[in-house]
Amino acid sequence: MSEVVSTTKSHGGTQGVYRHRSTATGTAMTYSVFVPAHEPGTSLPVLWFLSGLTCTHANVTDKGEYRAACAEHGIAFVAPDTSPRGEGVADDEAWDMGQGAGFYLDATEAPWAEHFRMRRYIEDELPALIAREFPMLDPTRQGITGHSMGGHGALTVALRHPDRFRSVSAFAPICAPSQGPWGEKALGGYLGEDRAAWRSYDACALIDDGARVAELLVDQGDADPFLAEQLRPELLTAACGRAGIPIELRMQPDYDHSYTFISTFLADHVGWHAGRLKR
Amino acid sequence: MSEVVSTTKSHGGTQGVYRHRSTATGTAMTYSVFVPAHEPGTSLPVLWFLSGLTCTHANVTDKGEYRAACAEHGIAFVAPDTSPRGEGVADDEAWDMGQGAGFYLDATEAPWAEHFRMRRYIEDELPALIAREFPMLDPTRQGITGHSMGGHGALTVALRHPDRFRSVSAFAPICAPSQGPWGEKALGGYLGEDRAAWRSYDACALIDDGARVAELLVDQGDADPFLAEQLRPELLTAACGRAGIPIELRMQPDYDHSYTFISTFLADHVGWHAGRLKR
Repeated sequence: MSEVVSTTKSHGGTQGVYRHRSTATGTAMTYSVFVPAHEPGTSLPVLWFLSGLTCTHANVTDKGEYRAACAEHGIAFVAPDTSPRGEGVADDEAWDMGQGAGFYLDATEAPWAEHFRMRRYIEDELPALIAREFPMLDPTRQGITGHSMGGHGALTVALRHPDRFRSVSAFAPICAPSQGPWGEKALGGYLGEDRAAWRSYDACALIDDGARVAELLVDQGDADPFLAEQLRPELLTAACGRAGIPIELRMQPDYDHSYTFISTFLADHVGWHAGRLKR
Repeated sequence: MSEVVSTTKSHGGTQGVYRHRSTATGTAMTYSVFVPAHEPGTSLPVLWFLSGLTCTHANVTDKGEYRAACAEHGIAFVAPDTSPRGEGVADDEAWDMGQGAGFYLDATEAPWAEHFRMRRYIEDELPALIAREFPMLDPTRQGITGHSMGGHGALTVALRHPDRFRSVSAFAPICAPSQGPWGEKALGGYLGEDRAAWRSYDACALIDDGARVAELLVDQGDADPFLAEQLRPELLTAACGRAGIPIELRMQPDYDHSYTFISTFLADHVGWHAGRLKR
């Protein structure tokens, strides 16, 4: 059972922050859930948001500006943390490895393998916990999105679970981590040097290996300093083209990689997911 | 000339954070300005937001959710800091006195009088600087709002300058600081024990002494833990009643004192001010 860290009324609904003991990571994990106002007995669609490097659940919860749109469309919003944390959890001095940089994978290499089990956490443990503790959320109507490393997370989780997620979008995602410095460092560090093991954590490789989703929406700022080297949306567009996956890649002029970019377009993504989850 | 701390595109406009050397406080001061997209030559109405105890410019800038509404209505948004800060500036271990707790007054008592000149800063220095450095902002169309201690600030600044501010609203304001623990501690500490000197920093006393504004909009959560002892909106309603000032006090059920309360209703206040500033 999750411990309630805080709940507060917002946009007519309830923004909560919760903490629980994770068996996947072996640590305490914190997550947030926004539940919009609803009639008793209503079953609400759910949008997951996976966050980027250095973030916790708090960044999008504080700065995402999603609640008005979730209230309008009657959609719940779940924001997990990006890695295990705390004393006894392996870390790295760099901000792109270790705590705050879990890359939504199950590490196999020392010293990471003991706690860095974010795939298992995001795909299995947290959804099961949410289903138990938030019975008003409808597990048959889930969408997923995320930012940067969390955009990578959203794409790869959705590609591995096309039956669970009816809709997937991303903000400035790391589209092909096997082909960029952040991803090569992280996948090599967490999974080892055998690149075959990387393919299930690389959206473009997953698509080339046959994974499919119905369609993709991606927003990307053209003033994003990480665009050319780290994010590489052109590789995702090419992979989707080869696979016949419809993708709408919106290059947003003058937007950068920060939360003001996310918060400008997140309400629009909420509406986009709503259109697919409420059919 | 202000130094640019950061600028980022948001909701089609520019969210900037700036720092300058203040002659009023004798310190570096940081503030934020959101300028919505506009045609060259346009003159934009301005909404000021004064923040509450412990806050800097950053709280509302990150968590206020005002930019979408400011973009929609074509209104700029200015958020100053709440006090002087830094080494050599007097402080108090308590969070309701000293740095982060300037109460928008000019202190006369030691050790505060040297730097705590927030009235002069907010009323004179920063508006003059904004007029010089943001020529697209229209000084003849200004509104002001704020939260808690900043709601006190917005009410008292507007009551002292009815010709400058066409519109004033507040979120959970300290309505009568002379009649609550936060206010009595702060006004006594900064201004001394002669309560006559407090009256120009107390919205209810200002109204009873003849100050007027055209109308007031106040949102107040009924689950706000500070409501009965510190905020006391009933005293403001009574003072407005005696003075014939129309006041709309909206008691918002189950909302508390936090930013999720502010961000739920700030877009609505932006629209309310827009209706008065764009006439």
